[in-house]
Amino acid sequence: MVQIRKPVAVKEALELLMAHVPAPRAETAALADSYGRILAEPVVASHDVPPFHRAPYDGFAIRSEDSGGAGEHRRISFRVVGHIGAGQMPARELGEGEAVRIMTGAPLPPNADAVVMLEQAAEDGQGFAIRKPFRAWENVSLRGEDARAGEVLVEQGNLIHPGVVALLATFGYASVRVARKPVVGLMTTGTELLRVHEPLAPGKIRDSNGPMIAAQLARLGIPSRSYGFVRDDLDQAFELVRRALRETDCVITTGGVSVGDYDYLPAIYERLGAKVLFNKVAMRPGSVTTVAVWEGKFLFGLSGNPSACYVGFEIFARPALLRMMGSRKPYLPHTQAVLTEDFTKPNPFTRFVRAVYRHDGSRPTVAPAGFNKSNAVSSIARSNALMVLPGGSRGFRRGAIVDVLLPGTEEGEAEWRIP
Amino acid sequence: MVQIRKPVAVKEALELLMAHVPAPRAETAALADSYGRILAEPVVASHDVPPFHRAPYDGFAIRSEDSGGAGEHRRISFRVVGHIGAGQMPARELGEGEAVRIMTGAPLPPNADAVVMLEQAAEDGQGFAIRKPFRAWENVSLRGEDARAGEVLVEQGNLIHPGVVALLATFGYASVRVARKPVVGLMTTGTELLRVHEPLAPGKIRDSNGPMIAAQLARLGIPSRSYGFVRDDLDQAFELVRRALRETDCVITTGGVSVGDYDYLPAIYERLGAKVLFNKVAMRPGSVTTVAVWEGKFLFGLSGNPSACYVGFEIFARPALLRMMGSRKPYLPHTQAVLTEDFTKPNPFTRFVRAVYRHDGSRPTVAPAGFNKSNAVSSIARSNALMVLPGGSRGFRRGAIVDVLLPGTEEGEAEWRIP
Repeated sequence: MVQIRKPVAVKEALELLMAHVPAPRAETAALADSYGRILAEPVVASHDVPPFHRAPYDGFAIRSEDSGGAGEHRRISFRVVGHIGAGQMPARELGEGEAVRIMTGAPLPPNADAVVMLEQAAEDGQGFAIRKPFRAWENVSLRGEDARAGEVLVEQGNLIHPGVVALLATFGYASVRVARKPVVGLMTTGTELLRVHEPLAPGKIRDSNGPMIAAQLARLGIPSRSYGFVRDDLDQAFELVRRALRETDCVITTGGVSVGDYDYLPAIYERLGAKVLFNKVAMRPGSVTTVAVWEGKFLFGLSGNPSACYVGFEIFARPALLRMMGSRKPYLPHTQAVLTEDFTKPNPFTRFVRAVYRHDGSRPTVAPAGFNKSNAVSSIARSNALMVLPGGSRGFRRGAIVDVLLPGTEEGEAEWRIP
Repeated sequence: MVQIRKPVAVKEALELLMAHVPAPRAETAALADSYGRILAEPVVASHDVPPFHRAPYDGFAIRSEDSGGAGEHRRISFRVVGHIGAGQMPARELGEGEAVRIMTGAPLPPNADAVVMLEQAAEDGQGFAIRKPFRAWENVSLRGEDARAGEVLVEQGNLIHPGVVALLATFGYASVRVARKPVVGLMTTGTELLRVHEPLAPGKIRDSNGPMIAAQLARLGIPSRSYGFVRDDLDQAFELVRRALRETDCVITTGGVSVGDYDYLPAIYERLGAKVLFNKVAMRPGSVTTVAVWEGKFLFGLSGNPSACYVGFEIFARPALLRMMGSRKPYLPHTQAVLTEDFTKPNPFTRFVRAVYRHDGSRPTVAPAGFNKSNAVSSIARSNALMVLPGGSRGFRRGAIVDVLLPGTEEGEAEWRIP
């Protein structure tokens, strides 16, 4: 018998899912290992940046008042009375008409308020002359102009990217509180499946979903543990899922969520007493995507079809896992682009098409990445985007503006496009 | 004395640089460790995908000829003579009016050419009836429709992302030839610099460039080795650079490339006999960016100013390092966006402004990420993009379309934007 399931809209399914995310847990990471982690504390300025009035160029520090009236035909000379390298402290205040040679990054003498760049100075034996007046604080990096002590510069929940690492280093965070990464258990169902090192056999195919999901997790910096294949035995499958749930923070299965004779996952959720949040989503591919919760842990039941599995992970597992780490930005990057070919398949449900997104120099474009069926695997490899076509439409024409999600933009451009 | 250097255009500097990239070297990676690596061999289909005519749904396999003439008022009945689960082989050919129950992913019997989905079949005791005729190959995944044996599916030089992992798994690549990662030596110059764990002292600041570049490299999956700080001693600095060159594939220094009194890098290049490709680029920040080559190894001399250092790495070191790994797409991802605030600073040189790029729901927008000076550090942390303003302009007005480079798009969206 065919069980009738009521499809929920993608947005509604996401809301249900996100409402069940457990609170994030924190741990400490060394600064050198912090790239890609999510901040579990804000980055707070522990001092002004710069911490002192600083020379932004190599040159001469002067008192601007001594430069008044200088011009092309009225040069004003300065005596150089000292030298301040970066990291050195000025020896004393400047007297009238005095200057110190100063290097980029060095602190100005207490009463200096301008820097004459080397190329603005006509040097002679004991000093130099200038041909223009300098305003107060001209060519000076002012204390605190970049950041003020006490300022919150990056909120918790943001990703630690190289710029955040630079700030952490500036403020002496030798270590930083970051979100603990969830450990994800992976399990594959399907008696037709072979492991990657096994030779192909009649009626069989090699499992691609397990390695693919492990890579999708790796893209998010999340470790996974493989629990292997679930075979045709409900009791054994149930025990394996229960073991994985005890040992990990979240379990992702592929296959077995449909209504076929060997689709055991619904029975497993029932035996566990897990709460099924949804078991049918108004989307293609991946309509069978099921999410259940058991003792605060998610069970993601993804389709066994590769494209459906890929999409189910990116649309549901990704934001849930990132939110489990306290991320402020858990959803896929979004943009829009011009469709460059007709897509005439009608869409009863929202369709996520594996697609190639690029900027062609004048506009962003998107087109399906070849063969578009839920069991396709080659189109995932060829795509760098998911093109989103809303449900209830009769197809889309070339030239339409469509939504685009960008699960992975690890790759750059073949050409340098800046003139 | 101020040494006059001739600035080269960014594009020209890149061409010079890329012409000196050494040939990539390959190594073997296990499939489980291959995410993020660059392919050193093409992914070739070792068999058709699917490898056999396959049921894409749970249902019944039939001979389409037996369904001719079926209709709402002329149901045609089939006897179910067997069952094929995924991974099983069909026992025999079908006779007239015969069907086998078949599960998603299972191979069709040799003379079956259509699949009746469960929801299209009115089941009774020994069989089922249909209400419509089925075309030949209706509801069948045809052997080879996704990929053909011998087909090159992904060329070498592409990044191994999750979709490529899925293909590698499909074709039994338990391991894969990938580009060897270069090892990069990092060295910081500047006597004003403290290490991250040192307390702030008068005239000093903590080094942010070293940790930042290590993170920029980590973003590319490239390991680095720190050689620490170069102090005010040319001989010592020379020995350290020479040691790093012997032990790594590429050396990145920060600071010391300008024309100040302690800018030793030019002297080091000369003493090494390194070929300086360029030492001034028509760009802001980072005009002092210097690249030299010694025995096939690059020396990147980046500015000591954090923003200039960041930009110099992304514009020059990134594509060179990726090309050293044979990448086909070494340049920063490029797009365009609407400038949402005036940027009135004139640009003698091409300007790369740390910026915030986002799609606001109707169009892509970009705006400077706050404080814009080459020695700023907070704006790097706040930015996710580099906005490119061409040289020779007098500034840009709100509403202008500008080029945008995306060094890192690790983060997603705060909201789900699909209706």
